[in-house]
Amino acid sequence: MNRSFARYLPILTWGRAYNRAALTNDVIAAIIVTIMLIPQSLAYALLAGLPPEAGLYASIVPIMLYAVFGTSRALAVGPVAVVSLMTAAALSNIAAQGTMGYAVAALSLAGLSGIILVAMGVFRLGFVANFLSHPVIAGFITASGILIAASQIKHILGVSADGHSLVELIVDLLRHVPQTNPITLAIGLGATAFLFWVRKGLKPLLHRLGLRGTLADVLVKLGPVVVVFATTYLAWAFDLAERGVKIVGAVPQSLPPFTMPSVSPDLIMQLLVPAFLISLIGFVESVSVAQTLAAKKRQRIDPDQELIGLGAANIGAALTGGFPVTGGFSRSVVNFDAGAETPAAGAFTAIGLAIAALVLTPLIYFLPTATLAATIIVAVLSLVDFSILKRSWQFSKADFAAVLATIIITLLAGVEAGVSAGVGLSILLHLYKSSKPHVAEVGRVPGTEHFRNILRHEVITDPHVVTLRLDESLYFANARYLEDKIYDRVARDKAVRHVILLCSAMNDIDLSALESLEMINARLHEMDVRLHLSEVKGPVMDRLMKAHFLSELSGKVFLSQFEAAQFAKGQNAGPLSEAQAERCAT
Amino acid sequence: MNRSFARYLPILTWGRAYNRAALTNDVIAAIIVTIMLIPQSLAYALLAGLPPEAGLYASIVPIMLYAVFGTSRALAVGPVAVVSLMTAAALSNIAAQGTMGYAVAALSLAGLSGIILVAMGVFRLGFVANFLSHPVIAGFITASGILIAASQIKHILGVSADGHSLVELIVDLLRHVPQTNPITLAIGLGATAFLFWVRKGLKPLLHRLGLRGTLADVLVKLGPVVVVFATTYLAWAFDLAERGVKIVGAVPQSLPPFTMPSVSPDLIMQLLVPAFLISLIGFVESVSVAQTLAAKKRQRIDPDQELIGLGAANIGAALTGGFPVTGGFSRSVVNFDAGAETPAAGAFTAIGLAIAALVLTPLIYFLPTATLAATIIVAVLSLVDFSILKRSWQFSKADFAAVLATIIITLLAGVEAGVSAGVGLSILLHLYKSSKPHVAEVGRVPGTEHFRNILRHEVITDPHVVTLRLDESLYFANARYLEDKIYDRVARDKAVRHVILLCSAMNDIDLSALESLEMINARLHEMDVRLHLSEVKGPVMDRLMKAHFLSELSGKVFLSQFEAAQFAKGQNAGPLSEAQAERCAT
Repeated sequence: MNRSFARYLPILTWGRAYNRAALTNDVIAAIIVTIMLIPQSLAYALLAGLPPEAGLYASIVPIMLYAVFGTSRALAVGPVAVVSLMTAAALSNIAAQGTMGYAVAALSLAGLSGIILVAMGVFRLGFVANFLSHPVIAGFITASGILIAASQIKHILGVSADGHSLVELIVDLLRHVPQTNPITLAIGLGATAFLFWVRKGLKPLLHRLGLRGTLADVLVKLGPVVVVFATTYLAWAFDLAERGVKIVGAVPQSLPPFTMPSVSPDLIMQLLVPAFLISLIGFVESVSVAQTLAAKKRQRIDPDQELIGLGAANIGAALTGGFPVTGGFSRSVVNFDAGAETPAAGAFTAIGLAIAALVLTPLIYFLPTATLAATIIVAVLSLVDFSILKRSWQFSKADFAAVLATIIITLLAGVEAGVSAGVGLSILLHLYKSSKPHVAEVGRVPGTEHFRNILRHEVITDPHVVTLRLDESLYFANARYLEDKIYDRVARDKAVRHVILLCSAMNDIDLSALESLEMINARLHEMDVRLHLSEVKGPVMDRLMKAHFLSELSGKVFLSQFEAAQFAKGQNAGPLSEAQAERCAT
Repeated sequence: MNRSFARYLPILTWGRAYNRAALTNDVIAAIIVTIMLIPQSLAYALLAGLPPEAGLYASIVPIMLYAVFGTSRALAVGPVAVVSLMTAAALSNIAAQGTMGYAVAALSLAGLSGIILVAMGVFRLGFVANFLSHPVIAGFITASGILIAASQIKHILGVSADGHSLVELIVDLLRHVPQTNPITLAIGLGATAFLFWVRKGLKPLLHRLGLRGTLADVLVKLGPVVVVFATTYLAWAFDLAERGVKIVGAVPQSLPPFTMPSVSPDLIMQLLVPAFLISLIGFVESVSVAQTLAAKKRQRIDPDQELIGLGAANIGAALTGGFPVTGGFSRSVVNFDAGAETPAAGAFTAIGLAIAALVLTPLIYFLPTATLAATIIVAVLSLVDFSILKRSWQFSKADFAAVLATIIITLLAGVEAGVSAGVGLSILLHLYKSSKPHVAEVGRVPGTEHFRNILRHEVITDPHVVTLRLDESLYFANARYLEDKIYDRVARDKAVRHVILLCSAMNDIDLSALESLEMINARLHEMDVRLHLSEVKGPVMDRLMKAHFLSELSGKVFLSQFEAAQFAKGQNAGPLSEAQAERCAT
């Protein structure tokens, strides 16, 4: 009882061993992460189409709930780029950005996603996320990065533009280019250039100055904070809002409010598919980060419990003015590098952000929106990586097709269509491949008991005996394929009297496949050909026995292919003595 | 060139060897099949909601086109019960039965289905049909049989009733029961009882009279002809139409007319999914019959060419006043049993039916509809077979779930929903199973070089070495499962220094799985654990080499698990000499 309780509350495990050293490390990590998270949270709220404070709120309670329910020691939960983009896409058909309806729908989306995640965790359905293959995710993230960057260009230009596919976005942007605000453009481009330099140029510079390791890394991550301060100061000092530069404006000074998501059935029906996709993508990203960090310290995470942790975080976001959240890559790495030892570091970060929400919000009144857009663009362009196309092309055309379809459909038809198409296509291609498994006709390698493909090796065969090896589990999608192969082979060659199916690579068999075997057996029998099986694996043999197939089988089942071939040969040479037959049919 | 031409025109192969003996056999078979087909064709037209002559037309040109393009020597193509039901279901939302629009939609459905079949044949996509698993088909046919029988009860009662799910049908029937026409009911029940007796009682009687073999079988199949004659006579002699008995009425005396299917895009969009499902179901049924008959004579059929043959038949049906057709079980068996040797028997049957359409149609003016309904009911009840439920329950719960869902959804929501749900569920269950493959930790059987599951056998293990055997191909849906298993195992036991992945059951690997292996390798490396592979199959090894995985691998690849274990053991005992290492890492 106690143990199963601890399974659902990992805090009971690490909390018991908590001490002063861990506390110190956690607090230091929390301070660094807090400073880094302030601009990031504001920016991702902008990306999701929500007011900036929603980004702070989405990082406070969710992070605390994850600390209680999550299993990763270093994962930092909050708004992330791809999920924020998916949130904006999901809400775009439901309400206009800036309206109350939009904010409520965001809460509902987070709540729904939280419930889906918790349910998947409780029913141990985390495996569903496995259907997002690596190449599909890589393609999706790359395409999302492009979409996100494109969606922020309007803020850099200081114009309004809309659209959830790349083409729509570009068309609308081009229409609005003449209205570009030159000061906004200057701030946007300046901030973008500075942030790129921080990423690419600052670290080598610090190294040359003798600064290495964690401190240099942290300084690099603080680039956005510097830009936020600098451009906010400029906007305040020169009153740029008067000159048409869009600024963040008044942000309420408050702890996260208690909010109620809508439970309207219509809204929930509309949000169900997006919430499911957001949950899956968020979970996959988060688990992959958590597992990478856990491996570095030989710790383990429990994917099913992670679902519960992330679900709790999202439900928390829904009740406290947030929007869908998940474990973020950059923030978690900073947290880990800064020395976080336990999820308590997350709780301290939450306290830091709560103080920021209470005290610092007046300071960001003059923060230009273009600055936030610049931080988003620089952050997401690191997600864009077309090397997956080359890699998958070299590895297999099926994987390449799935990646390409995901990228193109995400760019042209939006995130939901893109990820669904990628998953659908990878499943179809997998089924296609396994529906045409490799079937090799094998013969005996002279002087050995080994059997190899007759097309690749010099082997001994018998004109009356055909041995086929199926390199796949036999199931409905490939059972008829095997039937066809066998009938073809036997119809082509009237001398054949024995067909031996070498089952060494057959890990499983389903009812369709069993019925195909029965059909093969019966039809071969009508052709006066006997069917034998050899090297049948335990689980397959169990099934065949349960279905009484062995009593129908016209031939025998042999422990080894060598015995099977010897037996069939003996049969052709003339009847075996009973003792001989006994010995062969082990 | 010539050979590939012959592939698409099987007639060139058998036509060349045609002789007088084959001609005699084919003509005899054709006469028997023609007599049997007349009532069957009329009945299935009724089932599809079309005028009776459509059933004759659908058997004439299609049968001739199949004779040219098909590969089965004995298959008889025409309207069949399940496809006729699916036709009625597909057209029910498009036009009212008896209208011109309905008949045109039926032509379009046949044409579309023909195009789909030919396209699948040309692009060799016959494998798609494999996703209809045996249990799903069995469940679907059983449920369809019930639906068909239920849909005919109204004709037996002489009332009108409608509905495409069982519940709708029964509710509407109950509402109309008070309007039952007693004479119609008497004819319907009498015909049904007689036909049942023919099936169950006549054959034993004939046997007792010394009549056996083909002749007895043919007499039994002619039961419907007798009933048609008898009830037509009764209806004529007693002028039953005047007493409210529905009769077939005037049927045009004509050869199949030339007809044009509609090419309205709206109609085609509506018919696309039903046409696809009808094509699949028709193809699967037809190929299964053709293969059964071909096996009896050790002949072969080519499933991809069968698609072209059936496609041509359906296009023929669309152009000559028919509706969707496929290879029927009972008619093909009669054809085969009656001695048909080549597809020419089909052509002669077509001539016989053409003569019937020209000459015999006035004779069926007085044929009561209830008689046709009785022939349908008796024919389809032989399709109903719930034993698949018991069989699948015993074999595997996944197969059982797929069958049960197919039956229930077909009965409650109609044929299209039923077959789609069955296919979808079997694919999902298959993916689920393969996403949680069997992973066994293995150890060496003392005194041998064999490795077996440590949970099932007394084996030797090494505290520093973990050997895991994955009993499945590694692909996106199960790659992360393996990752989790390995991390769990290694995190649980800090003594582990080597992980050996025994790949003997891994038939294939995709890019996701490769990336998982890379991730496993990298993370184990961080934990100071080396990853080795053993018994990697050729195709998997090719892929690993192409992706340069072997150069990243922290451990080695071994030809046999025994070598791998020896090597890992040596590593723990102390460094191997270079020569030793060389020898082990074959």
